[in-house]
Amino acid sequence: MPDLQDLTRKLNTNNGSKIVLLVADGLGGLPLTPDGLTELETAKTPNLDALAKRGTLGSSTPVLPGITPGSGPGHLGLFGYDPLEYQIGRGVLEALGIDFELGPNDVAIRGNFCTIDGNGLITDRRAGRIATEEGERIVAKLAKAIKIPGIEVFVRHVKEYRLVIVLRAEGLGGDVEDTDPQKTGVAPFEPVARSAGSQRTAELLKEFIRQAREVLKDEPKANLLTLRGIDKKPPIPTFEEMYGLKPGAIAVYPMYRGLARLVSMNVLDAGQTLSDQMSRLEQAWKDFDFFFVHFKYTDSTGEDGNFAEKVRRIEELDAAIPRITALKPDVLIVTGDHSTPSKMKSHSWHPVPVLLAAEERCRPDLCDNFGERECLRGGLGQFPAKYLMGFALAHAGRLDKFGA
Amino acid sequence: MPDLQDLTRKLNTNNGSKIVLLVADGLGGLPLTPDGLTELETAKTPNLDALAKRGTLGSSTPVLPGITPGSGPGHLGLFGYDPLEYQIGRGVLEALGIDFELGPNDVAIRGNFCTIDGNGLITDRRAGRIATEEGERIVAKLAKAIKIPGIEVFVRHVKEYRLVIVLRAEGLGGDVEDTDPQKTGVAPFEPVARSAGSQRTAELLKEFIRQAREVLKDEPKANLLTLRGIDKKPPIPTFEEMYGLKPGAIAVYPMYRGLARLVSMNVLDAGQTLSDQMSRLEQAWKDFDFFFVHFKYTDSTGEDGNFAEKVRRIEELDAAIPRITALKPDVLIVTGDHSTPSKMKSHSWHPVPVLLAAEERCRPDLCDNFGERECLRGGLGQFPAKYLMGFALAHAGRLDKFGA
Repeated sequence: MPDLQDLTRKLNTNNGSKIVLLVADGLGGLPLTPDGLTELETAKTPNLDALAKRGTLGSSTPVLPGITPGSGPGHLGLFGYDPLEYQIGRGVLEALGIDFELGPNDVAIRGNFCTIDGNGLITDRRAGRIATEEGERIVAKLAKAIKIPGIEVFVRHVKEYRLVIVLRAEGLGGDVEDTDPQKTGVAPFEPVARSAGSQRTAELLKEFIRQAREVLKDEPKANLLTLRGIDKKPPIPTFEEMYGLKPGAIAVYPMYRGLARLVSMNVLDAGQTLSDQMSRLEQAWKDFDFFFVHFKYTDSTGEDGNFAEKVRRIEELDAAIPRITALKPDVLIVTGDHSTPSKMKSHSWHPVPVLLAAEERCRPDLCDNFGERECLRGGLGQFPAKYLMGFALAHAGRLDKFGA
Repeated sequence: MPDLQDLTRKLNTNNGSKIVLLVADGLGGLPLTPDGLTELETAKTPNLDALAKRGTLGSSTPVLPGITPGSGPGHLGLFGYDPLEYQIGRGVLEALGIDFELGPNDVAIRGNFCTIDGNGLITDRRAGRIATEEGERIVAKLAKAIKIPGIEVFVRHVKEYRLVIVLRAEGLGGDVEDTDPQKTGVAPFEPVARSAGSQRTAELLKEFIRQAREVLKDEPKANLLTLRGIDKKPPIPTFEEMYGLKPGAIAVYPMYRGLARLVSMNVLDAGQTLSDQMSRLEQAWKDFDFFFVHFKYTDSTGEDGNFAEKVRRIEELDAAIPRITALKPDVLIVTGDHSTPSKMKSHSWHPVPVLLAAEERCRPDLCDNFGERECLRGGLGQFPAKYLMGFALAHAGRLDKFGA
């Protein structure tokens, strides 16, 4: 049965209109007390409220009811890719998160330094949580020393005891078991292929570990490493192919640039601040017809459990809205990839508020401000996030009729 | 995974209740200004509002969010058939649209007269948009002349340069490419089968074109034709089989009679006016337990961009409601197959208002008039149109319990 993307691929038409998708990461929230207001409801957002009056609201479900998404599934849904169909391995996400450009021949692996004793048994799965500088030093040593004939090997540091390894060669499979035994007192597992096509990858990883063991043998803490989330970037049809849109991504954090790259968006220099991002949007306005703008701090303040700071960040975002509307996008969507209630200090499954403003084709609803409760009365209803792009394209006049 | 129709097929039970589905084509609309009212919200509809107070409202999505349906998918959804599963080719719809009764052995084709030059290259893809009388004359000439041994050939005029061709013979496939090159300065394509089972159809169409070329050679404008939307009527389970209902269709326009025929409804003589349709409904009341009544003018006035006239047509429909309620249907549904906002002068993707009145089993909601915004608060919620028949049968007491 065809899904929405099968239809958008066939029905898309280029009328020159422009769409802005402004993602306030972790936007949805919770009140601190049952009779209180959420962060978004608390924030003074005159610009968003004005858009809410003229536009249409709704609530999106990132994956399925009750399911709390990570950033990967959260964003894939917003981009219109079913996050259950396109599952991205941890190694791939980790590589995307450090701005590593993964190609189709790359197998990405998350590595964790660990400590082993004289018998080769793990005594600390995180190598005593060595400091980031220490991790950098050891990764540099590894990267320099390891040579495997016939393939390219990349070793990159992430943070503390975490690193990313990428094997690059034609025909490598990504279907190899983790080597992390998830407990101490045992040796790391050997890399084991789960399918014949990944046999060579498992052999190459054995060789990688053999060499790493030698390089690391005199390190006091990080004297070995375990491998997890071994995977290739799945084949994902491009955003342009799916929607006929030329997309530009304006995201400060590497993970979100990586997620944009996953669907072949053009990743633009975003600078460091929201104001930098707005300037980039203005400069690039004529070059693209879809903009993904990512704002991180509604999520990080939520994760920190800082309700007041999340409110302030939402107000900061609201203050930037006039710079977007001044560009007269045909469609402006403001939403999140998931909820991050500061009360919970974590991502959550709660539906995500959605605001869609489109001067020409919006059907007004009963809403007059942007907030979780108001969104429940919105004209877009409650819908799976993967359908958001359908609304975006339709309101931009970019979809032909289906069937006669 | 079973869909709703798998369940209705098993669980339906005949309690003698009667259902009326009144389809106001293109019912949903938009306000002309963001702070205005839609056509339905503007219209004075005391009878529909009274039903809305007692009944339940909702909004239906014809296909998927953002997708604008043609009449085919719009109606199939209302009849409970997933419009993505049952896709109807253009040739089939065109044949249905002129009341041609397609059988299981028929391949239907949309034909366009075109003009070719001395080298056989197309100079006008629409034969100078010849007048309807001219088209009729030429079609009659073709219909009389063309003989292909072993099969029946029907050639029927539609309008201006458009015609329908039907090939009837056992075992013909419908999987043949269009011959219209979609541009001038080139010759029409030869008919090419896309699968082995349609090889013979392609050969027969070549022969059809060979003869047509001869018949048309002295025509000044329409001296050849191109073929499009070559297809068979897909096998569709009957309405009665799916729901245990004996259905009667009361539609003035051929296209909608054709769509009713597609799911094996009994197509009744509808006369010409809404009053004629109401009289037919009264006369046929005891003979059927489901009635599909189709009202065209809410769509055509929307397509014309005539807001005031669409309002007037909705009021005309409202005035007919008492003749329906006087028959005491167990369930009366008033809805559209899609939205046709007069502001857009076209079909649109916006959700369609749904009113379901059922004296016995309706759970009241908060609504007290029939309009797009009010429907957002309705008890049926926002739902895919293909589930409407589930609500209809349930409220009519025609579905047994699922599972013990």
